[in-house]
Amino acid sequence: MDASRSYEVLIGRGLLAGLGQEVRRVCKAEKVAIVSDSNVWPLYGEAVKASLGRAGLEVVRFVFPAGEESKNGTVFLGLVDFLAREQMTRSDCLVALGGGVVGDLTGFASATYLRGIACVQVPTTLLAAVDSSVGGKTAIDLPAGKNLCGAFCQPRLVVCDLDTLDTLPEDIFRDGCAEVIKYGILYDEGLFRHLEEHRLRFDREAVVARCVELKRDVVMEDEFDTGARMKLNLGHTVGHGVEAQSRFTVSHGKAVAIGMAIVARTAAGRGICQPEVRDRIVGILERFGLPVGTAFGTDALYRSALSDKKRSGGRVDLIVPERIGSCKILPTPVGELRTFIEEGL
Amino acid sequence: MDASRSYEVLIGRGLLAGLGQEVRRVCKAEKVAIVSDSNVWPLYGEAVKASLGRAGLEVVRFVFPAGEESKNGTVFLGLVDFLAREQMTRSDCLVALGGGVVGDLTGFASATYLRGIACVQVPTTLLAAVDSSVGGKTAIDLPAGKNLCGAFCQPRLVVCDLDTLDTLPEDIFRDGCAEVIKYGILYDEGLFRHLEEHRLRFDREAVVARCVELKRDVVMEDEFDTGARMKLNLGHTVGHGVEAQSRFTVSHGKAVAIGMAIVARTAAGRGICQPEVRDRIVGILERFGLPVGTAFGTDALYRSALSDKKRSGGRVDLIVPERIGSCKILPTPVGELRTFIEEGL
Repeated sequence: MDASRSYEVLIGRGLLAGLGQEVRRVCKAEKVAIVSDSNVWPLYGEAVKASLGRAGLEVVRFVFPAGEESKNGTVFLGLVDFLAREQMTRSDCLVALGGGVVGDLTGFASATYLRGIACVQVPTTLLAAVDSSVGGKTAIDLPAGKNLCGAFCQPRLVVCDLDTLDTLPEDIFRDGCAEVIKYGILYDEGLFRHLEEHRLRFDREAVVARCVELKRDVVMEDEFDTGARMKLNLGHTVGHGVEAQSRFTVSHGKAVAIGMAIVARTAAGRGICQPEVRDRIVGILERFGLPVGTAFGTDALYRSALSDKKRSGGRVDLIVPERIGSCKILPTPVGELRTFIEEGL
Repeated sequence: MDASRSYEVLIGRGLLAGLGQEVRRVCKAEKVAIVSDSNVWPLYGEAVKASLGRAGLEVVRFVFPAGEESKNGTVFLGLVDFLAREQMTRSDCLVALGGGVVGDLTGFASATYLRGIACVQVPTTLLAAVDSSVGGKTAIDLPAGKNLCGAFCQPRLVVCDLDTLDTLPEDIFRDGCAEVIKYGILYDEGLFRHLEEHRLRFDREAVVARCVELKRDVVMEDEFDTGARMKLNLGHTVGHGVEAQSRFTVSHGKAVAIGMAIVARTAAGRGICQPEVRDRIVGILERFGLPVGTAFGTDALYRSALSDKKRSGGRVDLIVPERIGSCKILPTPVGELRTFIEEGL
């Protein structure tokens, strides 16, 4: 990837065993802090630690309780203070071993600890593999809303070991599928069709590689999220509203699925896309076992969506499908967002 | 200044009254959050608020208790959550009204809130005017040490109203003098001589402008602090040790003065500079009423200095004077730092 700093994305099986050598190759660390959560550490922690140890690296670990509610300021401050107490220096390295929450927290710490320390992302969920680990957007949630405090910070390397996806609970795997489907709607009808045909049995290596490639291209074009990259927010403005209203009991992937379904229905209703496009979008989400509606009302979703950060002045940029494989940015006055949501519910 | 983004530094008298127009000129904000502390807000808060209001800007304020102990994670999280609750958008603006603590906290919030929001620095102390407001280094302190978490983030504009320096308690003014003297030692014997001759009655406008110019040149050369900029740390590695040991009851300026005196004595003892250089450095600090020694022992200072972030692998880069107006970087193995401090105490 050729954002502020180039880095590789390795995708394959059995990669964890060689992680130590890879870390050695991309930075001059003497000491590595593995950051992980209480779900992932027991599965892969010791294997990663052993691999780093074999490469001659000193290893420490920071493991926090799994769940979106850990992506907060208190855990973040605990992490950077841990790094300081371990006397990690600017030439050392963090390894983010886990899903999106681990990746986001570790990435933000990598951007800010000593104003910058290297980071290697090791995504262990489909969602993290195709989305959060690539692109360098990092953040924590605030009491007032999701992802409201963060930084742009590219990792040195992303290592996606597909073996780790095999142990994912199906429900968590589904969450990632929502983002995979999103790439199809945004950029690639062929990918979308492959997903329609194969459903949860899609070709993991090819699909992960294609999603990462698509995201890389967008990020290369627009690292700092002022133009083309905004399209990756398809389903996210309304989705973040659902997440916030549910107090994060609805997962990110499911919330994005609901958001995409709402957007598709409004887009079809307004003639931005054909009804068939709406039906294919809603249909594929249902076939993947993802939700396409919510019990939260218009007003509640509108209020929560308003505090989403993709607002600029009195306007919010919504992403809407024109066809499968092509979406456009629809700048919407804040006052009209309510109607937009209402039409799609 | 021509770092990642160009910005101006305005230096003069009576500038606060025109601040609103200046903010309008450098960004498209509709809403401005003034960030200040309990000392500075009562002095200038209403004037700044009125000026912003006259320019048609909506104004909110975040005022926290004055003092270095406020430069922590809790106040930082409170600030970014305040911005979120006020629904500040990416096109709005922060105004940092105060000294170094206000500037650092606001700057870090500017770097991270929504992954970046504009910031105008309005330094009201000599220290902030000549040092922290210029150059884009922002940070908070962690329990484990000073400035350990932060970001590089250039403000849109720095407005230094010299009138605000007139109301500074002499003790706070002295703190800034330590950094002013530092610029003389590092780069400019003429500046150093002007200070030797005029002591606390030096020409404020000329000296502030000269220091800002010197810092600008260094930052332009090395925004991300990997080379020339390191020299600005003269006296800081040991100084941070003093600050930490005193639990921040010794101010930054005084700690840096002590650090510079220790470094000068060790440098002279090792023949890096002439004894006359040491005597002029220690002499000018004393004439400004700044401390040149400390009761903390070698071991305590060594331990605290070790957690300073300017450590890389097993090495710390110390800055030592060769003559007045010229210093060099002395890469020092961590194990030898203890002796270095001991020789200068």
